[in-house]
Formats: sequence, C-alpha cells, structure tokens
Amino acid sequence: MSLVVIGTVAFDAIETPFGKTDKIVGGAATYASLSASYFYKNVKIVAVVGDDFPKEDIQSFEDHGISTEGLQIKQGEKSFFWSGKYHTDMNSRDTLVTDLNVLADFDPIIPESYQDCEFLLLGNLVPQVQLTTIQRLKKRPKLVVLDTMNFWMDVAMNDLLVVLKEVDVLTINDAEARQLSGEYSLVKAAEKILNMGPKYLIIKKGEHGALLFHENQVFSAPALPLAEVFDPTGAGDTFAGGFIGYLAKVGTVNFHNMKNAIIYGSALASFCVEKFGTERIKNLSEKEISDRVQEFVKLSSFTIEI
Amino acid sequence: MSLVVIGTVAFDAIETPFGKTDKIVGGAATYASLSASYFYKNVKIVAVVGDDFPKEDIQSFEDHGISTEGLQIKQGEKSFFWSGKYHTDMNSRDTLVTDLNVLADFDPIIPESYQDCEFLLLGNLVPQVQLTTIQRLKKRPKLVVLDTMNFWMDVAMNDLLVVLKEVDVLTINDAEARQLSGEYSLVKAAEKILNMGPKYLIIKKGEHGALLFHENQVFSAPALPLAEVFDPTGAGDTFAGGFIGYLAKVGTVNFHNMKNAIIYGSALASFCVEKFGTERIKNLSEKEISDRVQEFVKLSSFTIEI
Repeated sequence: MSLVVIGTVAFDAIETPFGKTDKIVGGAATYASLSASYFYKNVKIVAVVGDDFPKEDIQSFEDHGISTEGLQIKQGEKSFFWSGKYHTDMNSRDTLVTDLNVLADFDPIIPESYQDCEFLLLGNLVPQVQLTTIQRLKKRPKLVVLDTMNFWMDVAMNDLLVVLKEVDVLTINDAEARQLSGEYSLVKAAEKILNMGPKYLIIKKGEHGALLFHENQVFSAPALPLAEVFDPTGAGDTFAGGFIGYLAKVGTVNFHNMKNAIIYGSALASFCVEKFGTERIKNLSEKEISDRVQEFVKLSSFTIEI
Repeated sequence: MSLVVIGTVAFDAIETPFGKTDKIVGGAATYASLSASYFYKNVKIVAVVGDDFPKEDIQSFEDHGISTEGLQIKQGEKSFFWSGKYHTDMNSRDTLVTDLNVLADFDPIIPESYQDCEFLLLGNLVPQVQLTTIQRLKKRPKLVVLDTMNFWMDVAMNDLLVVLKEVDVLTINDAEARQLSGEYSLVKAAEKILNMGPKYLIIKKGEHGALLFHENQVFSAPALPLAEVFDPTGAGDTFAGGFIGYLAKVGTVNFHNMKNAIIYGSALASFCVEKFGTERIKNLSEKEISDRVQEFVKLSSFTIEI
C-alpha cells in the first residue's frame, strides 16, 4: 500500500519583505511529499523535471523515504521555474516569471510499483493531468484528494469540473471556493461544491485557519497566530501533504480522523512559512511536530459545561 | 453588585442586500445590555436619548431586568440617529447619515444606585466619555471592558490612549488592532496593545472568529459558519455584552472563564445577525442559547492523543 503524490517538482525564486532567494527547489509535489513523509513511510511521487535538476535534490527525496521512480527526468530540457514577489501583507503576490519548460507537455507515467496506491494526492496542476493520473491507476484508491487554484478555474474550468467528479476531498482557499461556486457565503459555497463530486471540502483561510465541510457537518480549525510569516510559498501543498499523510497513517477515512488530519496538516504548514522554501520542513523532529500540534490543541480548547 | 453598560441608545435605519428598515431602536448600549441580561440579572445602563424615544422601548429594557435609572431623557432634543448601507459582502458599509443630536454633549450621569458596579462595559463611544464614566465610579470595578472603533482612532487617538490605561479588556477588530499598533502581524499588534494598558485583548475577526491574547497565552475562538448574515449591525456590541454578562455571572475573572465568555458572546452575536436590529436577540430562550453554544463546541472540538 502506498501514498502517491502527483504535482510539480520545480525551481522557485522568491522575494518577500524579509529577503529573496536564488533558484531554490520548490513545487507542489516537493512540499506535499516531504510533509506526508513525516506521517507515512511509503510515499511515492509522480512528476517531471529537466536535466538541470540537481541529483542531490532527487537523493533528498529518497533520504526521506520518498520513491522517485515516477519522477521523469527529461534530457536536454529545463525544469519548471516560477518566480514571485510577495506584498507586505503576505496574502497577495505578483508572479514575475512562469517558465513551464518540461511541464508544458507533462504526461504522467505511473510505474507498475505505484499500482498499490491507496491514498492519492493530486497536487495543484493542470486538471487534465490530474484526471489522467486517476485513469492510469488500475484500482481506484481508497482516498483521492485534489488541490487546485484560481488559475485553473480561469483557464480550465470545464476540465476541473470533470476531475472534481472523481475525487473525495477538495482543498481550496476561501476566494477559490467563492469563485468555483459563485456564492459569497462559504456555507452556501460548500453546499454547491459538495454537489460537484467531492464528499469532503476543505476551505483554507490562511491566517484564519480552515473549514471542513462534509454532509451536514462542519469543523473549524484554528491557525496558529504567528509573529512573522517569512515565506508562504508551499504552505498549501505542505498542508495537503500532512493532511493525507496523517490519514494514510491512521488508515481509516472518516470525519473524526479528518479533523485531526487538518490539525496535523496545519501544524506542518505553520513550520513551512517560518523559512524560505522547504528549508524548515526538511528536517523536523517528531518532538517538534508533536509540540506544535499540542500548541494547536491548547490554542483552541475550552470547556463549557451546560 | 451590578454590571453597568455605558453606550449609545439610538435610532438606526439600515439597508442590507436583504432589505431595509425604517428607524428602529439600536445603539451599542441597547445591544450590549440586552445580550448581557441573558446571563446576569443586575444590568444597568448609562445613556442619553431625546424625548422622541418611545416609552415602550424604555419599558422593554426594564422588562429584561435592565435598570434605566442612568438613561437621561433630554426634553426638546432628539435621539442619536445613524443610517447605513451594507455592501454585498456585508464586511463593509457606507454611513449615510450620522445625526449626533443628544450625543453631542453627552455627560454621563452615574446614579448613586450604580455605585455597586463590579463589572463595567464601556461600549463604543467618545473615549473622553468612557474615561469620565470610570472617574465617576467611586470604587474601581473588578473588571472594565472597553469596546471602540477605528473612527475614534482617527479623531481622538490621544484620548483613547489615556482611557486604555484604565481598562482590563479591550475588544476591537483586526483592522483596528493593526491601526492602533501600527503592526500588520496580529501577534505583534497584540504585544504592543497589551503594553498600552489592557491586560486582555480580544481581536474580533467577524466570520473568522476571535482571538484572545493575555500575557503569553492565546485562544482562538471559531465563528459559526452562517449561510446568511442578514444584518451585522450590533453584532460587536452583542458580543461584548454576552462576554461581560457571562463573566459577571461566573464572578471570577481568569483566562479560562474568559475563553468561555468569548464563546457565549459569539453565540449571542450569531443570533444578532439573523434579523434586523435587536429583533432576534430580544426574545431568546435559555434552550436556544445553550443549543447554539453546543454548536460552537461541536464545531471546534477535536481529540488528538499523542
């Protein structure tokens, strides 16, 4: 049994009010697989890079127990590159460069050894490639989680609606939930989106936490109030990876476990934003993670006896 | 022992995407005292109205057990009138009319029978009047809660800073916390504000809940996800009234009780926005309130065993 993560493995150059980086390793599959690897030991990635991608960074996945058999290396081509600059409020950013490179004609290859996939995370990517991935798995995984963004709603809404019918959990932010549903109220938005296919909807609200909707149930997860968000890049991917990694670990998919999975995903995301890129989530100890989760418990617990 | 609420008792005319009202009774002290009266039986208001204010609306306070001895009725003058129109997102509004009338020279009179005040809520009002109220109480109350808004930061920041030194709890929204502190991060904002006088800071985030800061402790309270916010007018005052009313009921002021007080305040505010003005919070049953509080418990509870 395994947890398969598909998404980008790429280079980012990031500028925030706190500083800027040269080209560093990023991409949805990078953040998500690293994050998931803290909870589940059989994580496998599907992605594509060019021959400019450093061998030691591929080795770094393997060091975390992440299989890179499904990572295609295209000779003579370049890896996907994104460059962006965050505004002072850290909630908005300008994209400076998007070089698709190898991503332009990415055809996901699912190695035979990945056919034991039980948990599938479709990281933020062209909806058509997310759909192809599902179709190339011979057996439907126990849980399919899809992460996407407003960009795909703008340019590929029809494809997105098709793949949404095939997934169990959708994770998007509040603005995207409003865009996808055409409803301002998140409760009404959730109702509409849960009719589009997903059985569970997670609305990520950044510094305001997250909401989980399922049938007539709602869970509100807090976000850890942080003195500084150093670099928000990859926080959503890290969240999704921690979320599905925790569920793969416990094995049973239900509302109760999903609430905890959101807390674990949020805890990992709260580490991610403390440093540039994957720096902070590359070497976390079990104690750091359990201490952080305890902070979430303390932050939101109260006892009312009626 | 009593809970004294000072603030406006006024007329509002409200327009929201769901409809509009003629002149209806509103004002910070109206919402806050009604809300507090569900938890504590000895609530007393300090306010001023003109002779245009209906006798039956004054009687309505008394029917809720709220003393109106400190409600001045100015003969030949008119009550404060505010008219506003909410935008589609309900988070912003245009003020159409502000007729100060009796409020222009409001001099708060504290009846002798109010000198047993143990809990004092300084509702949103000119900071100088809030300060005068504290000064006219012979004995410093056990707990002083101050609510204010960006308007007073714009026009009376120095007076606000003076009265802040005298209070225990400040309640403001996130934009106001940023304005007051000059810090974007709410954690840093809280740190600065807790150095201005208040020992506790509550940052209200509307649909995203509230944060309570005290020394090095933080509590994140959820907001009930609502399908529709019919009219947000008075929600903040209702929150503050429920908050201090609950604390007056339990008697002991500490972080633990304050967390619960925030949940009760939020529950009352969630009723307030369901109808125009005070309509929904005028006649709540104990069962309605405890059911709503249970919804908050269910909404935010999770169990993680590490």
